[in-house]
Amino acid sequence: MDKNGAYIVIEGGDGAGKDTHIAFLKETFPEGDFVYTREPGGTALGAELREMLLHGSKGDVSLPTELFLFLADRAQHVEEVIKPARAAGKHVISNRSWISFLAYQIYGREQFDWKPLVDSALEKIFKGCPLTLAIILDVPLSMGKERQRSMGKILDTMESMSNDSHERIRQAFLTIGKTLPQAKIIDASRTKEEVRTDVYAAVRSVL
Amino acid sequence: MDKNGAYIVIEGGDGAGKDTHIAFLKETFPEGDFVYTREPGGTALGAELREMLLHGSKGDVSLPTELFLFLADRAQHVEEVIKPARAAGKHVISNRSWISFLAYQIYGREQFDWKPLVDSALEKIFKGCPLTLAIILDVPLSMGKERQRSMGKILDTMESMSNDSHERIRQAFLTIGKTLPQAKIIDASRTKEEVRTDVYAAVRSVL
Repeated sequence: MDKNGAYIVIEGGDGAGKDTHIAFLKETFPEGDFVYTREPGGTALGAELREMLLHGSKGDVSLPTELFLFLADRAQHVEEVIKPARAAGKHVISNRSWISFLAYQIYGREQFDWKPLVDSALEKIFKGCPLTLAIILDVPLSMGKERQRSMGKILDTMESMSNDSHERIRQAFLTIGKTLPQAKIIDASRTKEEVRTDVYAAVRSVL
Repeated sequence: MDKNGAYIVIEGGDGAGKDTHIAFLKETFPEGDFVYTREPGGTALGAELREMLLHGSKGDVSLPTELFLFLADRAQHVEEVIKPARAAGKHVISNRSWISFLAYQIYGREQFDWKPLVDSALEKIFKGCPLTLAIILDVPLSMGKERQRSMGKILDTMESMSNDSHERIRQAFLTIGKTLPQAKIIDASRTKEEVRTDVYAAVRSVL
């Protein structure tokens, strides 16, 4: 049996319930044996890059630049957080992963001519650090928006993207979810308790 | 004839005389029709990334992270500075380029398993923006060190690298110089005036 800890990611579009279900997971699987982290921004350097990308006062960041900054964030996160935690036998639970990166940056923005390079880069970055489980929380676009609004979350990013982009992102999550052997798509349009039960069972099954 | 301006890079190891000969070029080809820039750090975002890499207080930056940050710097530089200047008919003269990136990060640090990915990335970044001329100033390692010392330059980076690394970097410049059709290797161990004459002739020949 692999002595490394598991590498579990919670995925899905905005308003799918990632934060809520990660909070539930923390109640059952407290920090210590479990390391909770996020992408982008799971390291100090990553947080700085995230800040540059979200609130950069440095003029327009070109699309290729953005892709490489996200890759740098991922690379640092794997080396600094995920690999060491797993090697110490801890289980890593991450809010988003490279799956979101592909869904938003490649599919959402239809940058398919960058996909082969990004795929190769991700493959090299995550070499020796495969996913154990990817939970993909799926909700219809309208429900995701409504949830975020009701929680008073800032919808800047979401509102600034077209519904078409959001639908492409959702479909990308579903496509990856159906293709990736470690992925499990969970219908997150149901009640919190129903979803919580499924998320718990999925995590439990890989520990 | 191509209406785009030329894209000329001045290359070589530390102490080869890049700053000196770029200063000479500025006297003959003043800013205006000529755009003088540098890599890394030729954009505001690039300068911030350079700062992170050189003086990062963010803990150790992993090697893959560093490669992606350098690629982000290059990508932003091409889109924000080089392409627009050339499209406006101006000639770009850059202190260092992707050639230094390959020489230092890949050859100097012997990261050959990253070379195919970095090559593909550079190819995509510089698509539609080929070099017109790469001047490679070559000096023996001992002379480069001595020059930097005599000019009172901080030798932190240089001193922190082994002579082996420096020799690998020099050989990488020479290999690229012999392989790349647009490259011209100039023996920079001669007098400033001799070198200046050759640099001027090389630049003149592509304008």
